[in-house]
Amino acid sequence: MGAPPGYRPSAWVHLLHQLPRADFQLRPVPSGFAPQEQEYQQALLLVVALAGLGLGLSLIFIAVYLIRFCCCRPPEPPGAKSPPPGGGCVTWSCIAALLVGCAGIGIGFYGNSETSDGVSQLSSALLHANHTLTAIDHLVLEMVERLEEAVRTELTTLEEVLTQRTELVAATRGARRQAEAVAQQLQGLAFWQGVPLSPLQVAEDVSFVEEYRWLAYVLLLLLELLVCLFTLLGLAKQSKWLVIVMTVVSLLVLVLSWGSMGLEAAAAVGLSDFCSSPDTYILNLTREETGLGSDILSYYFLCNQAVSNPFQQRLTLSQRALANIHSQLQGLEREAVPQFPSAQKLLLSLEETLNVTEGNFHQLVALLHCRGLHKDYGAALRGLCEDALEGLLFLLLFSLLSAGALATALCSLPRAWALFPPRNPSASCSGSHLSEPFLHARLEPVPHLRSFPSCRRRPH
Amino acid sequence: MGAPPGYRPSAWVHLLHQLPRADFQLRPVPSGFAPQEQEYQQALLLVVALAGLGLGLSLIFIAVYLIRFCCCRPPEPPGAKSPPPGGGCVTWSCIAALLVGCAGIGIGFYGNSETSDGVSQLSSALLHANHTLTAIDHLVLEMVERLEEAVRTELTTLEEVLTQRTELVAATRGARRQAEAVAQQLQGLAFWQGVPLSPLQVAEDVSFVEEYRWLAYVLLLLLELLVCLFTLLGLAKQSKWLVIVMTVVSLLVLVLSWGSMGLEAAAAVGLSDFCSSPDTYILNLTREETGLGSDILSYYFLCNQAVSNPFQQRLTLSQRALANIHSQLQGLEREAVPQFPSAQKLLLSLEETLNVTEGNFHQLVALLHCRGLHKDYGAALRGLCEDALEGLLFLLLFSLLSAGALATALCSLPRAWALFPPRNPSASCSGSHLSEPFLHARLEPVPHLRSFPSCRRRPH
Repeated sequence: MGAPPGYRPSAWVHLLHQLPRADFQLRPVPSGFAPQEQEYQQALLLVVALAGLGLGLSLIFIAVYLIRFCCCRPPEPPGAKSPPPGGGCVTWSCIAALLVGCAGIGIGFYGNSETSDGVSQLSSALLHANHTLTAIDHLVLEMVERLEEAVRTELTTLEEVLTQRTELVAATRGARRQAEAVAQQLQGLAFWQGVPLSPLQVAEDVSFVEEYRWLAYVLLLLLELLVCLFTLLGLAKQSKWLVIVMTVVSLLVLVLSWGSMGLEAAAAVGLSDFCSSPDTYILNLTREETGLGSDILSYYFLCNQAVSNPFQQRLTLSQRALANIHSQLQGLEREAVPQFPSAQKLLLSLEETLNVTEGNFHQLVALLHCRGLHKDYGAALRGLCEDALEGLLFLLLFSLLSAGALATALCSLPRAWALFPPRNPSASCSGSHLSEPFLHARLEPVPHLRSFPSCRRRPH
Repeated sequence: MGAPPGYRPSAWVHLLHQLPRADFQLRPVPSGFAPQEQEYQQALLLVVALAGLGLGLSLIFIAVYLIRFCCCRPPEPPGAKSPPPGGGCVTWSCIAALLVGCAGIGIGFYGNSETSDGVSQLSSALLHANHTLTAIDHLVLEMVERLEEAVRTELTTLEEVLTQRTELVAATRGARRQAEAVAQQLQGLAFWQGVPLSPLQVAEDVSFVEEYRWLAYVLLLLLELLVCLFTLLGLAKQSKWLVIVMTVVSLLVLVLSWGSMGLEAAAAVGLSDFCSSPDTYILNLTREETGLGSDILSYYFLCNQAVSNPFQQRLTLSQRALANIHSQLQGLEREAVPQFPSAQKLLLSLEETLNVTEGNFHQLVALLHCRGLHKDYGAALRGLCEDALEGLLFLLLFSLLSAGALATALCSLPRAWALFPPRNPSASCSGSHLSEPFLHARLEPVPHLRSFPSCRRRPH
């Protein structure tokens, strides 16, 4: 049929589609896409709940770690010169976690833009399909009006002019009947007229939701970036209050990360189910929404040699009728013009109308052919099931990395700030670090310019 | 005409297109895309040369800075306790530069993937266009063969069967003539037959080049990432040899960054000139390469109401001839079958052939219509002029950031490593930092766990 190579589910779709699903009673749920069924909804909610479980576990782990750190430290003699071991390592692990978080943020920005690309591909395909569908309606309307106008004016006048010769009047009436038949056949081709579903509206809704999703992710990513940068600044400046504020904000971002991870995982699982065999679901949904026959919908959604063009009959009949009108007009021109010169102008005008109608007819054939609309369908599926799903997986990776990095940072930050030397505001202003008795007690000679934390082993 | 909304030059294209261009004698060059003209080539080479100038200036700046730092340091009293001021700031500025470099690498990865997306969109549009063009050829061939087969077998046999009635033989001969006329008209529609240009070949060439471009950028980005990470490691571990090696590699990457910047800037400028009005250039190029008439090329590349379908005449004639064959077969069925029952099977077979040919004819009309191929053209242009250009600009930003970051790092690294305390291997092994006399001389009491470089002002 000359249909372009269509959409094929990617490896990610297969992989995610093969994961087992279960409802709240942990009974297995089939992985066919059925968002209206309660079992399937429960399976997706269970995926979100898994992220909630992860959040709970990581919060418990952080709490246990910090309680153990606060309460079970070995007692330190008050004047001890040796600091608790591993101080540099705490700072370093914190920095490494924050760098991993920054890498995750980069991945998140990429994933967010990829998802946005996929969704905008979907909505541009919908807009294009809408353009084709409205173009069909307009073209049919225009052709029908043109034919009816020709029947009302030129053909009626022609009958009046040729009224003396009955066989010519009969030929004119034949042409008139054919023109009316073509107009009637054409009206049946405007299949989208009166259909309550507007792809334009769907595209606008999708773009609207996507805009807010995109914005929410950009804000989350920027928030996490600010947390990483300000925490690094706090560690560099040894500013206790900044580190404490950032620890609290990190906790908030950790919750947000796990929450977004749950949503992404559920969306990815649902999308993979949809994308593994989208045709049936979309066909049923469109049939319900539009009330169109399944022959038309199968033709456009499948567009292969097995499905014949449902408009073939009407197109062939119209085409034959147009050719008949043409030969009748040719006959009239031969027979009538020598006797009735006033008919020539009318016949020329009718042939002009016929030529334009035939040109429009070819355009209508091109618009009605499944190639164009099926290509839009393929582009929409590729946008949703390739780009958007890939973007979602990158966002999932971002959430994972950021949850891990923030959990590590939350474990290390309180230890790191506990190791900061307390500062005297006046000392900080004058630039001297040596005016605190407590500080003197904890000092040891260290190369001044070894100004980077080190993980080398120290003597105990 | 119902053509979909096409390609429109973006703001970036307009902006880059408006930049002044000059040849080697600095005479202004018009900014129309003309890659075969020497003046225009010189203008692009001048853009590359500007990047070379930037590289030279930055190398001179680094050399002057380092020479000034080495030779013009204020003399330091040998036993001074105060270290040279700003030591922490040097390390910090180095770290900040490397972080900016890392951000640039993220941007570079994004730009590289965006460019790759754009180019793959271009080559998939070319593949799709190739599919359409070959489908037209195959369909025409199939229809012509089917008609010729019908003329050779069924119509010839029919003539033999009906040989007793001359008026029926005449009608059969009429149908035969019409079928031959249709076959001849159809052969004129396979306009791509024998054209030496293959979009498939172009797509393969583009993909081949793009693969290597992508790989080269990924390697450059990974090299720069490794430089950043190992330099940070070197600073953290205070490993002089690692920092020295990384300084040398940084110099190499600096040269590569400026080189890639020149290529990207020239490519972006050339692409913007191409993208500001691609139709004329592409039309001329395709006319030269294919030898096709400008009516056909204008129809596909412009696809608006001003350009009429160059196949309209042939299509209308074929359509009328097919309708005539149909009415002649109907007449024969009415007249001949009662007298010659053996003709019925032949007539049914001919009508079947006619129906299939009419179905194929509608498909041919759809394939020949400019909508499909013009959409591919628009997709190719959007891929090249939106995604690929945007990616190029991101790569340009990466090169700029990385050149700036590496220049800063190259200025700071030698100062930073000059400030590292010399290490005694045994001291390093035992973990003690205090076994070196030189070290003792430079020590000052500092809070031990202030283990991060600080930029606070110090008393002089």
